[in-house]
Amino acid sequence: MANILLLNGPNLNLLGTREPDVYGHETLSDVEASVRDLIESAGHTLRAEQSNREYELIDRVHEARDGIAAIIVNPGAFTHTSIALLDAFNAYEGLVFEVHISNVHKREAFRHHSYISGRADGIIVGCGVQGYELAARRILTLLALADG
Amino acid sequence: MANILLLNGPNLNLLGTREPDVYGHETLSDVEASVRDLIESAGHTLRAEQSNREYELIDRVHEARDGIAAIIVNPGAFTHTSIALLDAFNAYEGLVFEVHISNVHKREAFRHHSYISGRADGIIVGCGVQGYELAARRILTLLALADG
Amino acid sequence: MANILLLNGPNLNLLGTREPDVYGHETLSDVEASVRDLIESAGHTLRAEQSNREYELIDRVHEARDGIAAIIVNPGAFTHTSIALLDAFNAYEGLVFEVHISNVHKREAFRHHSYISGRADGIIVGCGVQGYELAARRILTLLALADG
Amino acid sequence: MANILLLNGPNLNLLGTREPDVYGHETLSDVEASVRDLIESAGHTLRAEQSNREYELIDRVHEARDGIAAIIVNPGAFTHTSIALLDAFNAYEGLVFEVHISNVHKREAFRHHSYISGRADGIIVGCGVQGYELAARRILTLLALADG
Amino acid sequence: MANILLLNGPNLNLLGTREPDVYGHETLSDVEASVRDLIESAGHTLRAEQSNREYELIDRVHEARDGIAAIIVNPGAFTHTSIALLDAFNAYEGLVFEVHISNVHKREAFRHHSYISGRADGIIVGCGVQGYELAARRILTLLALADG
Amino acid sequence: MANILLLNGPNLNLLGTREPDVYGHETLSDVEASVRDLIESAGHTLRAEQSNREYELIDRVHEARDGIAAIIVNPGAFTHTSIALLDAFNAYEGLVFEVHISNVHKREAFRHHSYISGRADGIIVGCGVQGYELAARRILTLLALADG
Amino acid sequence: MANILLLNGPNLNLLGTREPDVYGHETLSDVEASVRDLIESAGHTLRAEQSNREYELIDRVHEARDGIAAIIVNPGAFTHTSIALLDAFNAYEGLVFEVHISNVHKREAFRHHSYISGRADGIIVGCGVQGYELAARRILTLLALADG
Amino acid sequence: MANILLLNGPNLNLLGTREPDVYGHETLSDVEASVRDLIESAGHTLRAEQSNREYELIDRVHEARDGIAAIIVNPGAFTHTSIALLDAFNAYEGLVFEVHISNVHKREAFRHHSYISGRADGIIVGCGVQGYELAARRILTLLALADG
Amino acid sequence: MANILLLNGPNLNLLGTREPDVYGHETLSDVEASVRDLIESAGHTLRAEQSNREYELIDRVHEARDGIAAIIVNPGAFTHTSIALLDAFNAYEGLVFEVHISNVHKREAFRHHSYISGRADGIIVGCGVQGYELAARRILTLLALADG
Amino acid sequence: MANILLLNGPNLNLLGTREPDVYGHETLSDVEASVRDLIESAGHTLRAEQSNREYELIDRVHEARDGIAAIIVNPGAFTHTSIALLDAFNAYEGLVFEVHISNVHKREAFRHHSYISGRADGIIVGCGVQGYELAARRILTLLALADG
Amino acid sequence: MANILLLNGPNLNLLGTREPDVYGHETLSDVEASVRDLIESAGHTLRAEQSNREYELIDRVHEARDGIAAIIVNPGAFTHTSIALLDAFNAYEGLVFEVHISNVHKREAFRHHSYISGRADGIIVGCGVQGYELAARRILTLLALADG
Amino acid sequence: MANILLLNGPNLNLLGTREPDVYGHETLSDVEASVRDLIESAGHTLRAEQSNREYELIDRVHEARDGIAAIIVNPGAFTHTSIALLDAFNAYEGLVFEVHISNVHKREAFRHHSYISGRADGIIVGCGVQGYELAARRILTLLALADG
Repeated sequence: MANILLLNGPNLNLLGTREPDVYGHETLSDVEASVRDLIESAGHTLRAEQSNREYELIDRVHEARDGIAAIIVNPGAFTHTSIALLDAFNAYEGLVFEVHISNVHKREAFRHHSYISGRADGIIVGCGVQGYELAARRILTLLALADG
Repeated sequence: MANILLLNGPNLNLLGTREPDVYGHETLSDVEASVRDLIESAGHTLRAEQSNREYELIDRVHEARDGIAAIIVNPGAFTHTSIALLDAFNAYEGLVFEVHISNVHKREAFRHHSYISGRADGIIVGCGVQGYELAARRILTLLALADG
Repeated sequence: MANILLLNGPNLNLLGTREPDVYGHETLSDVEASVRDLIESAGHTLRAEQSNREYELIDRVHEARDGIAAIIVNPGAFTHTSIALLDAFNAYEGLVFEVHISNVHKREAFRHHSYISGRADGIIVGCGVQGYELAARRILTLLALADG
Repeated sequence: MANILLLNGPNLNLLGTREPDVYGHETLSDVEASVRDLIESAGHTLRAEQSNREYELIDRVHEARDGIAAIIVNPGAFTHTSIALLDAFNAYEGLVFEVHISNVHKREAFRHHSYISGRADGIIVGCGVQGYELAARRILTLLALADG
Repeated sequence: MANILLLNGPNLNLLGTREPDVYGHETLSDVEASVRDLIESAGHTLRAEQSNREYELIDRVHEARDGIAAIIVNPGAFTHTSIALLDAFNAYEGLVFEVHISNVHKREAFRHHSYISGRADGIIVGCGVQGYELAARRILTLLALADG
Repeated sequence: MANILLLNGPNLNLLGTREPDVYGHETLSDVEASVRDLIESAGHTLRAEQSNREYELIDRVHEARDGIAAIIVNPGAFTHTSIALLDAFNAYEGLVFEVHISNVHKREAFRHHSYISGRADGIIVGCGVQGYELAARRILTLLALADG
Repeated sequence: MANILLLNGPNLNLLGTREPDVYGHETLSDVEASVRDLIESAGHTLRAEQSNREYELIDRVHEARDGIAAIIVNPGAFTHTSIALLDAFNAYEGLVFEVHISNVHKREAFRHHSYISGRADGIIVGCGVQGYELAARRILTLLALADG
Repeated sequence: MANILLLNGPNLNLLGTREPDVYGHETLSDVEASVRDLIESAGHTLRAEQSNREYELIDRVHEARDGIAAIIVNPGAFTHTSIALLDAFNAYEGLVFEVHISNVHKREAFRHHSYISGRADGIIVGCGVQGYELAARRILTLLALADG
Repeated sequence: MANILLLNGPNLNLLGTREPDVYGHETLSDVEASVRDLIESAGHTLRAEQSNREYELIDRVHEARDGIAAIIVNPGAFTHTSIALLDAFNAYEGLVFEVHISNVHKREAFRHHSYISGRADGIIVGCGVQGYELAARRILTLLALADG
Repeated sequence: MANILLLNGPNLNLLGTREPDVYGHETLSDVEASVRDLIESAGHTLRAEQSNREYELIDRVHEARDGIAAIIVNPGAFTHTSIALLDAFNAYEGLVFEVHISNVHKREAFRHHSYISGRADGIIVGCGVQGYELAARRILTLLALADG
Repeated sequence: MANILLLNGPNLNLLGTREPDVYGHETLSDVEASVRDLIESAGHTLRAEQSNREYELIDRVHEARDGIAAIIVNPGAFTHTSIALLDAFNAYEGLVFEVHISNVHKREAFRHHSYISGRADGIIVGCGVQGYELAARRILTLLALADG
Repeated sequence: MANILLLNGPNLNLLGTREPDVYGHETLSDVEASVRDLIESAGHTLRAEQSNREYELIDRVHEARDGIAAIIVNPGAFTHTSIALLDAFNAYEGLVFEVHISNVHKREAFRHHSYISGRADGIIVGCGVQGYELAARRILTLLALADG
């Protein structure tokens, strides 16, 4: 049994209420619930957190060093600006999957660069909130392989 | 019922034999078979093609304008250099999902830019050959939604 | 009657004590009071906040989505670095006026770019603390027009 | 009593007739009249000029060296290209306030840089034609302070 | 019947006398006459102007807002430097065709960028003075289509 | 009597069917036919080819070294990426006219640079499919001059 | 007697546990204790703080304006991204010494630039945790000189 | 006997009155007179002109094509922005010497590039108004050589 | 005994006929013959291929994975644009020597960068067609060493 | 017992006489003497050299390969320009500490990059001539550790 | 009476023998003699030195700190690369005039930037060897003024 | 009979002792001897020199103007920094072949640019010390041709 962390960054608390034509109508709780179902049905546990605070995200990654096998992270705008969050991930040895709900490559140029991608194991972009589930599936596969 | 195209670009014919520690031991046929199983079990069909020839990829995308609902594409190195392939995708109106087996953001800087990403609906990077399956799952979801 | 938010970012709590030859001798409370007078005399209300915390500024903008018609913001140094704050403003639909007390174009090159300006409705730079009042006047005009 | 110059650059003679949804329906005469009212009611005088000719703007600034206490300038496209106009302002010792009617930061990248901003005392952007009035208010404040 | 304006910028008054091996032996009057013949034989009128003065070119474009259906323009060196002229064209709603006699892409790098091309409907480069005629032909075609 | 080659690059086989509001309703055959009429009525011959294959375009230019007096080329996306095609043109000594149907300067930045323009004799952009005819007219003029 | 502040930024709480071959086995408490010994043996006092929170670092620098003679700071990743922290240091008038444990010039390019270095009095890089002690020694020397 | 033209660009009419510690106390007339003395004492003639108008400078260079053997030019701010003036010099075949009174390399970066220097025969920078005389001396030498 | 591949890219089929003052009068067959003589006299075999087709070059490198000890390659213009060819070489484990007949550093800036050089074992530039022979000599030395 | 080399580059012979407000009043001999005292009191020896000659610095580093355990180097302006000196350090296997007396990050941009920093073990900037002593202390610590 | 130093850098010993059509037929001795005549006739002395050695030029500038009132320098290629030489000039307080015989702005881009120009008092370019004399004249004027 | 110069730059005196896995075990004397054998067996003479001193390399190239037909040069790190050495080569009219022992394109980016390559006749990179011999062979061929 492995513990998995689902970590969402700034402004993602607005999911489902902000620009629903871009981000869809599902709220963050909906998303967390459906990822939890998938993870738990495979016999693992999920902890889900969202924060607009860079330091809370850093703290969550620090804590994850103790017993969390994989992190699914959507760092929101910190993707493009936070080397401190990258450093936290660099100090973490588990799996890291980066998710972006919308296709950031269709947006402003400053959203095309991610400090996290160079550390991530995989990156899923533009698959809507289903992107979280796809990342979870990849993690389940890797956990099964490691287990096998 | 929808038709889906799985399109692989240059050097991907070597899959399973080239740098297996990076790309794994599955061959391209293995990958195509497992994506086909997933697609067909949802009642759709898959056509799979690989080519080292830019024009064949372009021709395949042109033909896809007639009856192909979605394309899963790993353009290989053409990702970074082929505006002609982008133009073909621009002339195509179905779904486009871009897949890269390895995490291109951990490689040379010239592999960080993709001409296709701005046209793609979603992008899946660094999930190994499972990336093709994840793209397929996203497509099945979107087809079901459109159907619903 | 409309509610207006006056939002000041990091280091602006030092106003009146830091480099008074550059920023003047008025404290932040003085400034907030005089903007409040102007706003209230037009029959509207003002809420004033300052924070050195990026997440508090983000939270204030989130809350403003509910009932705040306009924001006057001096994001301080976050002007140049916070895409997360920009995203919060992007999720807000009211008026946004950006104020800088000193003329940032006379300072270091990294202060010449603002992530917020592309979202702001208007920008007022180098008018000292009177800049807040000028922004308020513009907002009063727009509110009156919308009202008319 | 001080003399103030309101100086508008190329294409601003079209104000009120060009893209009224962007620039509004007020003509340049309307704008000049309302700024004049504000200035004169404070006991000062206003001279207003518009020119599509770079040299006339330069000449006006040269003449302003003799008896003009402040200039409100919207250099239009010369903002981004005229070092000669900047040099004229460099040779002038009074107050300079730069006004742009629309938010230039929402337009092409080549409109984001201003040669004048580094010389200006204050800059007001995106406040419509009211920007001229706001600049005038700032000048009146500074004149009163100097007077005081 | 439509009115067409042929507008030539700085240094083009020297045509036929300056570097004839590059620009040919035809003078500007020769060129204007032959374009006029073509235009008039199609039942339209041509007004032809040349100026070394940026403001005169701007003024001509302003005036063209009233009754000129199309402009053929060779802005000379202003191609590369005049945002003010671009703004004048932006305020004009008719057809704009940009002509360069020599192939500017064979010359210094600073001649490769044109502020006008992004506004122009068509651009003709390196066809000698015949370029004006080719632009006229395109305009005649478009006028005929609009008429049809 | 001279032989002329009309060469179209990748994706231009879709002409008339792809984005007709941008590219018009004429097919490539229509275009080739009307250019042929113009050329033949002047007593010359036209060979017309289209290919999505870079090497076929290169081969056609190689063959043109033997008996083709002028090439009208729309290299499509290869305009921006193919130094190999440029080299083929560098090895060819006849006339080269580059045509782009739409105004590439209104599109993505990566479409603003052409490897071919530095070798071309003339360039015609944004004149729709009529651009081919205008290029042909220029060639006929030059052939007549050389003949004369 | 002077008060000195030792300020460590994000992720430095992990010292001694994260990549010990890079950062050594000493924990942050060890480091703080040994710097304290050195400072106190010279008759001064040391306050030591670490935070992953940008605003706490800013607040600590604000408070230091009142009675702290010198700051030894390792801003961690904020070195490269926080203009807000720089502004706090700009509002502080005491001594500032910047320390980096590892040699940042051997790491990613984005770690080579420091917003703080332009404000710092001295910078010590790549001397391991001894760097803090060396900074302290420099401060003791300067305090002694000022005292002398 | 040769005719020489001394041409000064925008803002140089202020010479002697603007920033005298930078530009000295000599007026433009003083300078013109002393250059004239030097030229005439060698048996040649001098025509001196100043203009803030780009087109007048261009016109003067056009006219110089007829009978002017050498031009001493200080293009002022047009040095850095006027390709049109460069084109006029390109159409002129006599000697061109570029003079800058102050050392432009000690000023803003945008003053370090000159469009004219690539066309000039010689350039004299930072020698105060004596620079005009030094340019004249060089011209006299070259005229004597050509004469010899 | 080892097998060696001599691979020439686009436009090199024109060798001996194109710009003979640059490339000499030897044809590609002459060159291949003389390299074969050198290789065979050392007891090895040579296979020689030229193609204007990127995919054929890729295919040849793929096939070389099976039994070819070394490749001498002149990728022509693909040197500067083909990441796909680089990928093929990356999947090949034998020796790679890159040859350019002319000195590419004396040509356009876009010819100064090679995608292949970072993978090649050695590079020989500007030695005319003798460059192929020099590369062959180096390979013979390395084969002899490996043999020894 | 270890031998240590103190190496100073160009213009540092002027120490104590050049800009004493920046560099202090201590001469290079003073500095060398005080570092020697520190080193010798720990039982090691110091050799001190200064040269304005790049080759002498290179030669000293070459010689240091034989028996010198650590080098303290202030390469002066060669810091920013000498790859040859970097190569010499690359061929040396002992400890390297780079010292700059003033804070180079407060000076011109071209002084912000160091070729040596990527090779150095530690870097000490802006600590005045005490920087040499701090570097020596670090070296003594590392020697003691290695000894231990 | 003042002492003046004429300092020539690398490759200038070849003057008169290297590319005489560019540099003329006068040798360096000829040039030094004629500058000496001019200087001595004004009652001052000239010392002339040439060196291909960067350190000798630095040493000469160091020595000049003692009794040399002005330096005329042509640093040759060191103009573009030697920060060490710039530092020597920065430590020198007399007059510095930079001379280049040919017009460096007509040569390769890497010759357009000079490290010395920002320190020089005046710069004379493209006046042939007469440039040295013109610099001397300027120095004589300044010495006379200082004397006056 | 021709005289040939073999010139090696800084740090190459360490050949055979520095990083032998990169540079091999042959010393510089070994290399010079084997190149001499090759040259002399063709009836020519070889002079071989190495220096860490830029000026000695320059002096050797100056002397080579008198009687040396060809230079084989490995400028070491001066390749990337010495315009002065380039100028010396520009003043030399014989053959120049540039050799780099290792493949500089696999090293740091600042080693990818060579000032010398634009002047060299041929360049040989990454062929180990055999590169010198290959350069010699090319020179022998060219001398034989010139002789023939």
